[in-house]
Amino acid sequence: MTQLDILSPAGFRAAGVSCGIKTKAGAKDLALLVADEPAAAAALFTTNKVAAAPVVLGRETIKRGRLRAVVVNSGNANACTGRQGLSDAQQMACLAAEAVGARPDDVLVGSTGVIGHALPMVKVRAGVAAAAAQLNRAPQAARDFAEAIMTTDRGPKTAGVQGRVGRATVIIAGACKGAGMIAPNMATMLAYLTTDANIAPAALRSALKAAADVSFNAITVDGHTSTNDTVAILASRASGGREIAARSKEHKVFTSLLTRLCLDLALMIVRDGEGATRLIEIRVEGAASVRDAQRAARAVANSPLVKCAVHGGDPNWGRVVSAVGFSGARMDEKKLRHWIGDELVFARGMPTRFDRAKCEEHLRGSRVLLRISLGLGRAAYTCYGCDLSKEYVAINADYHT
Amino acid sequence: MTQLDILSPAGFRAAGVSCGIKTKAGAKDLALLVADEPAAAAALFTTNKVAAAPVVLGRETIKRGRLRAVVVNSGNANACTGRQGLSDAQQMACLAAEAVGARPDDVLVGSTGVIGHALPMVKVRAGVAAAAAQLNRAPQAARDFAEAIMTTDRGPKTAGVQGRVGRATVIIAGACKGAGMIAPNMATMLAYLTTDANIAPAALRSALKAAADVSFNAITVDGHTSTNDTVAILASRASGGREIAARSKEHKVFTSLLTRLCLDLALMIVRDGEGATRLIEIRVEGAASVRDAQRAARAVANSPLVKCAVHGGDPNWGRVVSAVGFSGARMDEKKLRHWIGDELVFARGMPTRFDRAKCEEHLRGSRVLLRISLGLGRAAYTCYGCDLSKEYVAINADYHT
Repeated sequence: MTQLDILSPAGFRAAGVSCGIKTKAGAKDLALLVADEPAAAAALFTTNKVAAAPVVLGRETIKRGRLRAVVVNSGNANACTGRQGLSDAQQMACLAAEAVGARPDDVLVGSTGVIGHALPMVKVRAGVAAAAAQLNRAPQAARDFAEAIMTTDRGPKTAGVQGRVGRATVIIAGACKGAGMIAPNMATMLAYLTTDANIAPAALRSALKAAADVSFNAITVDGHTSTNDTVAILASRASGGREIAARSKEHKVFTSLLTRLCLDLALMIVRDGEGATRLIEIRVEGAASVRDAQRAARAVANSPLVKCAVHGGDPNWGRVVSAVGFSGARMDEKKLRHWIGDELVFARGMPTRFDRAKCEEHLRGSRVLLRISLGLGRAAYTCYGCDLSKEYVAINADYHT
Repeated sequence: MTQLDILSPAGFRAAGVSCGIKTKAGAKDLALLVADEPAAAAALFTTNKVAAAPVVLGRETIKRGRLRAVVVNSGNANACTGRQGLSDAQQMACLAAEAVGARPDDVLVGSTGVIGHALPMVKVRAGVAAAAAQLNRAPQAARDFAEAIMTTDRGPKTAGVQGRVGRATVIIAGACKGAGMIAPNMATMLAYLTTDANIAPAALRSALKAAADVSFNAITVDGHTSTNDTVAILASRASGGREIAARSKEHKVFTSLLTRLCLDLALMIVRDGEGATRLIEIRVEGAASVRDAQRAARAVANSPLVKCAVHGGDPNWGRVVSAVGFSGARMDEKKLRHWIGDELVFARGMPTRFDRAKCEEHLRGSRVLLRISLGLGRAAYTCYGCDLSKEYVAINADYHT
């Protein structure tokens, strides 16, 4: 598969420029994505009750299920900025709308960076103008967009998938950023996806919701939900073919493609987790309900003791089993089984006589699987976390606001 | 006030000996506390669904509200040990009962240490006999008891309070251990309290519950609830005076004394938190309900980002406010106010123009106060945590099971 990016689906242009919001000279900090025609759109936002201005505005904007453009700045989150912040976010939408010939309420605004500081609107104005002037369809423009939404990320994060949906070949691609749920006083996970699928807003929204639940909502670096999290998708419908109706077979196929993309992007975020050296997949099966499976998986993923044990390469089944025990999930320790990789390490309420060397070898790998079967039902959930290293503490303690 | 210990209330004897359960030669690992007469008793146990054998047994034992003895070993938690574990815990109760002339169901058993390993019963048997032979009322015996329940603790933790309850002078004292909710594959917070108060089991239980809710249940080192947590209190009634009836004025006074003691002990655990350099007090006020206040306080206390910020001495109001935002507590960012020490740093949805130097000075102290007013009601809750240091990661990653 060739490298797909957010400009691979037909009908979009993008740009990413530097306008001086970030202190580092020349660092790209303003991103613009424009659909040639009004695109069907859907978006999901943070569940944090402290929501940044662009999130407050975006929740309204997306209600009509239509977007022409996405404008994002990095270096400043426009969060905890009061009335001024909301006004600035609105102005940012107006500036982008004017520059690309759209309506302000067809523009989704995103921000990420330090919180509690007013957006430098003079710089934003210049940045939007510069980005609009550079809009194009070349792969470099997609890379520039991905770079301009970064904060503490070690590099741009982009991915794409392609597949048959009904009779049409559909591309879905995305760019995202994030390295901690809240990186050092920078905020946020942001993901912007494009597709050429012929799909209406409601069907697009349900597909996005389903995909995000098992990808972006299944990752955790530090259990700290940001104030700015946003995932948005724009559909140009350029692929042609019959419109993908909700609950149709095609919708299922589209959702599964979208899920694959979202998971690819989400795992890039976890792998880039601050100080992380290993991706940890926590797979909970046999739960009495999906909610129970989620609770158990998340308790394991967020336990600093489990994260430290994986970091140290220690097959510490006790920390995993006891995390499930306090998770709130229905469980019976006698029915619970736990595997590290393929090795069964706990069953019937006790550790097995497991092959320690085999477990340690698995834990040395870059992707660790902690599998738990609750033995109570058929519900399952998988979530993804990372280990906890001294580097995480260094990044988050030594940083100063 | 003179140093009070668990033998200050009349009617108790104690001992702490080494019987070789811990690998370190000579390290005390078996503790015994005996009441001269059957004592009124109450106990609270871990809420973790994975409960160690002594907890499973203890829940039954305490139902009668009466104890003659407490026997505790350290170095082995007798957790995840299956049927053998329960049988061993029962045998431990029998051994202690026989040695001190009590009924086995009047003996509360406690264990803390590595999990998933069978108790070395030969050593336990020798230890119980040795401890029983050494039982006495001298302060050294109280110190030996406190030492023998330690695992990763940097030192023994004991405290006592004294006060008038009705016409009697009452002493309550305790010894506890704990340094992580689960220390390096060692488990547990254990606390054993004695009092000479004249109080019946039901009234004692409600006092203990109330005291624990704002002390032992209000502390967190890593949010990871152990499988062995136990708090037990024995009342010898030796103080004389009228029996303290539930819901009486005397009960209120007794509960407040007990609360002070439990908080003293609980804060010793947090201060000894693995790698901790600072105690953090998180005080949430103005909540719509106590549950909301608890949720908000615990989310702040358990946020690794907040813990790292305090460790680094950074007045990072954004991490605190956003932790409240995802805690599940009802909140309105425009009504929320946040103080670091006495300095108001956040109000009306935005950071104030706070005195940064003053905040940083407060954060350099050994006890940090993060105060949050939600501005929605009158409920409040205070919880206590500690900072997150590289040392925590070192302790928990470098340790091997």
